Amino acid sequence: MQTPWDYRYAQRTQRMKASAIRELLKVTEQPDMISFGGGFPAPDVFPVEEFRRACNHVLDRMGPESLQYSGTDGYAPLRQMISRHTVKLGINVDIDNILITSGSQQALDLLGKIFINRGDRILVENPTYLGALQAWNAYGADYIPVPTDEYGMRTDLLEESLRKGAKFIYVLPNFQNPTGTTLPMERRLELIQLADRYGVPIVEDDPYGQLRYEGEDLPLVELLDSQSRVQNGSYTGNVIYLSTFSKILAPGIRLAWVIAPKEVIRKLGLAKQGTDLHTSTFAQMVAHEVGQHGFIDRHVKVIQQVYQERRDTMLDSLEEHMPDGVSWTHPEGGLFLWVTLPERFDATAIFPKIIEEKVAYVPGEFFHPLGDGKNTLRLNFSFCTPEKINEGIARLGKAFKKELLEK
Amino acid sequence: MQTPWDYRYAQRTQRMKASAIRELLKVTEQPDMISFGGGFPAPDVFPVEEFRRACNHVLDRMGPESLQYSGTDGYAPLRQMISRHTVKLGINVDIDNILITSGSQQALDLLGKIFINRGDRILVENPTYLGALQAWNAYGADYIPVPTDEYGMRTDLLEESLRKGAKFIYVLPNFQNPTGTTLPMERRLELIQLADRYGVPIVEDDPYGQLRYEGEDLPLVELLDSQSRVQNGSYTGNVIYLSTFSKILAPGIRLAWVIAPKEVIRKLGLAKQGTDLHTSTFAQMVAHEVGQHGFIDRHVKVIQQVYQERRDTMLDSLEEHMPDGVSWTHPEGGLFLWVTLPERFDATAIFPKIIEEKVAYVPGEFFHPLGDGKNTLRLNFSFCTPEKINEGIARLGKAFKKELLEK
Repeated sequence: MQTPWDYRYAQRTQRMKASAIRELLKVTEQPDMISFGGGFPAPDVFPVEEFRRACNHVLDRMGPESLQYSGTDGYAPLRQMISRHTVKLGINVDIDNILITSGSQQALDLLGKIFINRGDRILVENPTYLGALQAWNAYGADYIPVPTDEYGMRTDLLEESLRKGAKFIYVLPNFQNPTGTTLPMERRLELIQLADRYGVPIVEDDPYGQLRYEGEDLPLVELLDSQSRVQNGSYTGNVIYLSTFSKILAPGIRLAWVIAPKEVIRKLGLAKQGTDLHTSTFAQMVAHEVGQHGFIDRHVKVIQQVYQERRDTMLDSLEEHMPDGVSWTHPEGGLFLWVTLPERFDATAIFPKIIEEKVAYVPGEFFHPLGDGKNTLRLNFSFCTPEKINEGIARLGKAFKKELLEK
Repeated sequence: MQTPWDYRYAQRTQRMKASAIRELLKVTEQPDMISFGGGFPAPDVFPVEEFRRACNHVLDRMGPESLQYSGTDGYAPLRQMISRHTVKLGINVDIDNILITSGSQQALDLLGKIFINRGDRILVENPTYLGALQAWNAYGADYIPVPTDEYGMRTDLLEESLRKGAKFIYVLPNFQNPTGTTLPMERRLELIQLADRYGVPIVEDDPYGQLRYEGEDLPLVELLDSQSRVQNGSYTGNVIYLSTFSKILAPGIRLAWVIAPKEVIRKLGLAKQGTDLHTSTFAQMVAHEVGQHGFIDRHVKVIQQVYQERRDTMLDSLEEHMPDGVSWTHPEGGLFLWVTLPERFDATAIFPKIIEEKVAYVPGEFFHPLGDGKNTLRLNFSFCTPEKINEGIARLGKAFKKELLEK
């Protein structure tokens, strides 16, 4: 039924459709369902006691201030904390290179707001994070998907895509969402060189960088970019870096940050002012307090331990239960792994039958901006306990085998 | 100096200028400055102890849940609380008529996102809330400013403006920001009738409605609109209503809400999902807990008492110190009053001289979308203590008299 409202909506809302994935995942709320669908951290590792201590501390010492309006750029001590962490990684930043955002989703929205004119092309990994597509669809973005393999973006195919003209390159180099792959050193170098040659900025989204369970940390793309330049003072390179407290503390407080050249931070700050004035003063002060005395580094080790066990459990369980012809990635960190079914399968089409077995995933096509990748799917291994993971993968294996027999 | 970034920004950023008002107000951070510039609530009335109790309660009972991701529409018990409050005011809503936002500024941004195509005209009071202009400039809005007087929008001039074609009407009926005026009953009725006749929705922004210090509450525009229709079930009218916890609890937690027909809430929710996923789970649970057992109603009475005294102090002080030819509004509630200088004065141009007397305001032209109103200015009376108000208005009177002598 058409209503008077239908005629009033702006053109851009045509691409804001009720996310099919959301509808699919509604069924995962059934009590006996084992869901590998969401991207939720394990609630059992949230530092509840640390938050309680920090809330009380902040309300004791800075009660009225913590409940008052504050500046758009963010709470200076929190930005200083992030700046110290970033300088340790080798990048020369100060607090004017940092903007606090209400989750990384807001950073993606603000990037869309300041960069994307209708019809602008964004170069993305295929598949890529669907929240980014959702944010940028609202600004009328088109996408140039670059093929990926088990090592992430195929940088040998990047130049061909860059020739089509792109506003920026969006990349998740560490334990990518959705595939769990990590971009190797040589590809990082090739990426920054090509981006620089074509004058196209890179948006480096790094929500999981600290959650590595094996192998050695690789330098951030932003660091490699800054090393490739003669630096005078603070960071002035070609990379806009996003990270978040969602995976290392808790997502429910909606707290993330952007690191970029100061002029880009200023522009993002202007956009943010009109968008939500500023991020919660209280949440910023509490996160800063939780982060004192090296707590985050210690807490990350706890998370690594828990998630590594869950990843290993899922990998072992896949080995045990998956039928022939099904393959999956081996992520060195993060929250997700990526399953490829035989070509003839459509992970969306079989979804209703799969969930009869009380197990759920996210069909891969939603992460493909052009809707390909129908025989792929994403599994999350951070949220469920190892027992549930074993049970869920067994159910999934059984369901896939049934499908195989039928085809 | 032009940089490579300048060529990359989207067209819409041309209207995202560093707010001149922000630059002006930077001087107000000097320690001996008395500022009537900001729109800050009094920090001495923030319910810090209630927040402490609520934070501990939430972390005790729902620790992991409060720190986890949650739904875009908002925490259901908080929406139920808002729904009960709204039903008491006479409007038939349920929780699907309510969207929680990260402050009302976000609601303004989301309205821009779903409604405004470049060049769309928004009908606003002249002057109007500048945060709304800032939000909608990013979507390429144009404005049709409707003249106002001491009773708010001149609804007798509204039809003429409606004939020019408007996407929606934006109005702050109670203790308007910036003028402090309140729209009388007859004008409210005329507003909804005209809006209905021309098929133009109304956005009713009501951050201060509960902060009335004299006179009787008037019905919400949304209520009058719903009474003018045959209602079947929940609210399906022509008004989108915005309110916030910023002025009745605290602004630092960034928590507000929208009430609208369900289909509009669904569309706003889709836009919000791409914008920041959801508002802080923890903040929503804490605000819900603070609001238990009628606390907000009791607390509003405390705020009313404090702000009424400050308003009265400012009105008395203006009477005592202002030179002839200066007039001001008598707000029945809210946070602001509006001063009109003799025509030949420019409140922006004399600002640098005024602040030499260590007192500050916001020049009125910033609230006028077409930049008129140069002889007006906004004073906030909620933030400073009565002593400071007396001292500040004395300084302002002295400064204005000096200006008068010079002209």
